[in-house]
Amino acid sequence: MRIFDIISKKRHGKALSREEIFFSINGYLDGTVADYQMSSLLMAICINSMNDEEIFNLTDAMIKSGDSMDLSSLGSLTVDKHSTGGVGDKTTLIVSPIVASLGCIVAKMSGRGLGFTGGTIDKLESIDGFKTELSIDEFLKQSKEIGACVISQSGKIVPADKKLYALRDVSATIDSIPLIASSIMSKKIASGAKSIVLDVKVGSGAFMKTTDDALELANTMIKLGKAFDRNVCALITNMDIPLGFCVGNSLELYEAIQVLKGEGDLRLTELCTSIASQMVACCLNIPEKKALNLVKDSISNGSALNKLYEWIFAQGGKFTKEEDLLSAKHKIDYLSKNSGYISKIDAEGVGISAMLLGAGRIKKTDKIDHSVGLFFKKTYGDFVSKGEKIATIYINDLSLLDASIKALDNSIFFSKDLPSTQSLIFNIIK
Amino acid sequence: MRIFDIISKKRHGKALSREEIFFSINGYLDGTVADYQMSSLLMAICINSMNDEEIFNLTDAMIKSGDSMDLSSLGSLTVDKHSTGGVGDKTTLIVSPIVASLGCIVAKMSGRGLGFTGGTIDKLESIDGFKTELSIDEFLKQSKEIGACVISQSGKIVPADKKLYALRDVSATIDSIPLIASSIMSKKIASGAKSIVLDVKVGSGAFMKTTDDALELANTMIKLGKAFDRNVCALITNMDIPLGFCVGNSLELYEAIQVLKGEGDLRLTELCTSIASQMVACCLNIPEKKALNLVKDSISNGSALNKLYEWIFAQGGKFTKEEDLLSAKHKIDYLSKNSGYISKIDAEGVGISAMLLGAGRIKKTDKIDHSVGLFFKKTYGDFVSKGEKIATIYINDLSLLDASIKALDNSIFFSKDLPSTQSLIFNIIK
Repeated sequence: MRIFDIISKKRHGKALSREEIFFSINGYLDGTVADYQMSSLLMAICINSMNDEEIFNLTDAMIKSGDSMDLSSLGSLTVDKHSTGGVGDKTTLIVSPIVASLGCIVAKMSGRGLGFTGGTIDKLESIDGFKTELSIDEFLKQSKEIGACVISQSGKIVPADKKLYALRDVSATIDSIPLIASSIMSKKIASGAKSIVLDVKVGSGAFMKTTDDALELANTMIKLGKAFDRNVCALITNMDIPLGFCVGNSLELYEAIQVLKGEGDLRLTELCTSIASQMVACCLNIPEKKALNLVKDSISNGSALNKLYEWIFAQGGKFTKEEDLLSAKHKIDYLSKNSGYISKIDAEGVGISAMLLGAGRIKKTDKIDHSVGLFFKKTYGDFVSKGEKIATIYINDLSLLDASIKALDNSIFFSKDLPSTQSLIFNIIK
Repeated sequence: MRIFDIISKKRHGKALSREEIFFSINGYLDGTVADYQMSSLLMAICINSMNDEEIFNLTDAMIKSGDSMDLSSLGSLTVDKHSTGGVGDKTTLIVSPIVASLGCIVAKMSGRGLGFTGGTIDKLESIDGFKTELSIDEFLKQSKEIGACVISQSGKIVPADKKLYALRDVSATIDSIPLIASSIMSKKIASGAKSIVLDVKVGSGAFMKTTDDALELANTMIKLGKAFDRNVCALITNMDIPLGFCVGNSLELYEAIQVLKGEGDLRLTELCTSIASQMVACCLNIPEKKALNLVKDSISNGSALNKLYEWIFAQGGKFTKEEDLLSAKHKIDYLSKNSGYISKIDAEGVGISAMLLGAGRIKKTDKIDHSVGLFFKKTYGDFVSKGEKIATIYINDLSLLDASIKALDNSIFFSKDLPSTQSLIFNIIK
């Protein structure tokens, strides 16, 4: 078998066999398939796509490229979630304690930031003392006792994905449904949870620009999950408006606490209760409506918030009061340069603005400044007058301020008329 | 400008601008565009193709990546030819002295073998003393005085093509009309000849499998040549049957001499006189029929053969008699294992058989054995009995014999009935 023939086959739009796919993935990991051959194959897949069987085999080859986590000692109530990404997405911090307080187990591996802003692990590390590297025994013990444990993604789980993703990122081969689906699902399946809830974002700031594409990706991932004997469901959600008011690591944790107190942004709260209720329904095998009521109760009776604190302490976090999360040296008002209704907040631009403050990484090796970020006071559809405060900029190094403000200026758009209401959840599919 | 965006644009089927194409080619040469990015872009070009303007700009970027040869001191009668390759293709050795004897000037750079068998330079080097590296002054002087001079392709001419071709060769991105056309024509245009005749091969052993594809490639190259102010014409020729009776470097030179003596294989002779008459017609601006008569006369009156010797001696070749070209230590009969009409001779398989004797290179650094090869006694359409001689194997190292015979066994096919006559020249276009 030669990689040349495999590339050529896909270039001419033919389906690859299981053996050919395993040969390509294993060869890429062991170095017998070169970067320039794999990028050529990836481009052929991007343009000519893959059928269901190929996608299954690709996912299986990725899973088998490394270790799989065995969560069987935790029983059948393990549940994981995945979001296809978005600026200001702090849902994991919110839904994990909710569903753990209802008897589900979130024994989860998560990543650092890809793209402009910090990932879940970066956000958790904004808590002093919080350990994101645990032994497997510690991980399983905490998951069993508390119902929630989130650790840093191990390099031993799906190593092929790490190498492939880095290559896709520089060879313009990211936005392909077979490649995205196999990348996400290989990690979710290798991570061991029985139930998986997917939040597929759609909109100008997301990989999927249309609901049709998002539906295709969601259906592809659901089929994959079922083929690997998992319970899977997916929500197709709007990403044209940033989620919540905070962007930046400790600020997002602060906002997560507000949601768990019942005092959070309504759209963010709605998204989190929807995801959490899907997780609970899927995991406990109960009707969605019942699950939603349980979720709402867990917020109103304080058990979800208590679970968050329990989780943070179990993982070594030293946390006294929420205000400590708003600890940047300087708080600068960002004032509106226009009058009108806010008709668009460009999520990518907002992410870049926060990154420029130090909240994200430009290079992989950059250190994150956990305390900086943006706290919006106004959102989509709000009317603001010129000179009125739109956001507070949390910043430590004032020399970064101008660049960050410039990025914000280019990200907020105004209209004379009230902009149309935007849906949050387009679809829920299983 | 970022290579990522350029790749992404072509991946989505959009046309690249002149600036984007130059950025890609120059960046690849200076190392700021990585192999894995270029192979991804090449695959996108293979699948989504390029329009005429893009192909022109790509060719121009390749030409400008290095030096161009200035043949203006030789006047306007310079002419070059290019064949898209084939096993046993020794046409350059035959047409160059023909057209030089008629007043045209072949001041040509040629390559070593790509693929299985030696290139024109390897074939010329089978003559003792023949120098394929000359200074520019020596090259121009000989071209002016003799009308024929062939030297080794300089690395300074279209360096981008060398680097790109090596990458295409390992990333399954060879067979693309924009990439083939720009590769061939950039070298031909940078080599400086005013007139260019292209021999585009079609058939199972060629890059172009159908006459439609070959016509498209030919028309693309003709358009390109005209855009760079050259006279161009193309022959579409059949490559399903190997050309002539000899495969192997000194054997092919031997066969070239037979053709110039008027004693060569009829198909090979017809192809060479057709190419040569197109070169003459194009270069001297005379009707094709007149050109063909001049070409035939140059063979029958011996002036073409004399020109060959003159050329060989001018370039330092020590040559006494043709039989010295048949100097391999052993001459082994290859006998037919079947009875029947020869219905197919697989050119690629024959090339591999000769390569295994040492006539070609497996690795770039392999040394060629100039005296080995295959001399066929039977060809397509001939009837042979079991045990009858099909070819003579010229070999120095007998340990290579079995592998070579095995490759031959797999390359010759028989039928009960006389196979249909095959055309040689499908089309001539300008």
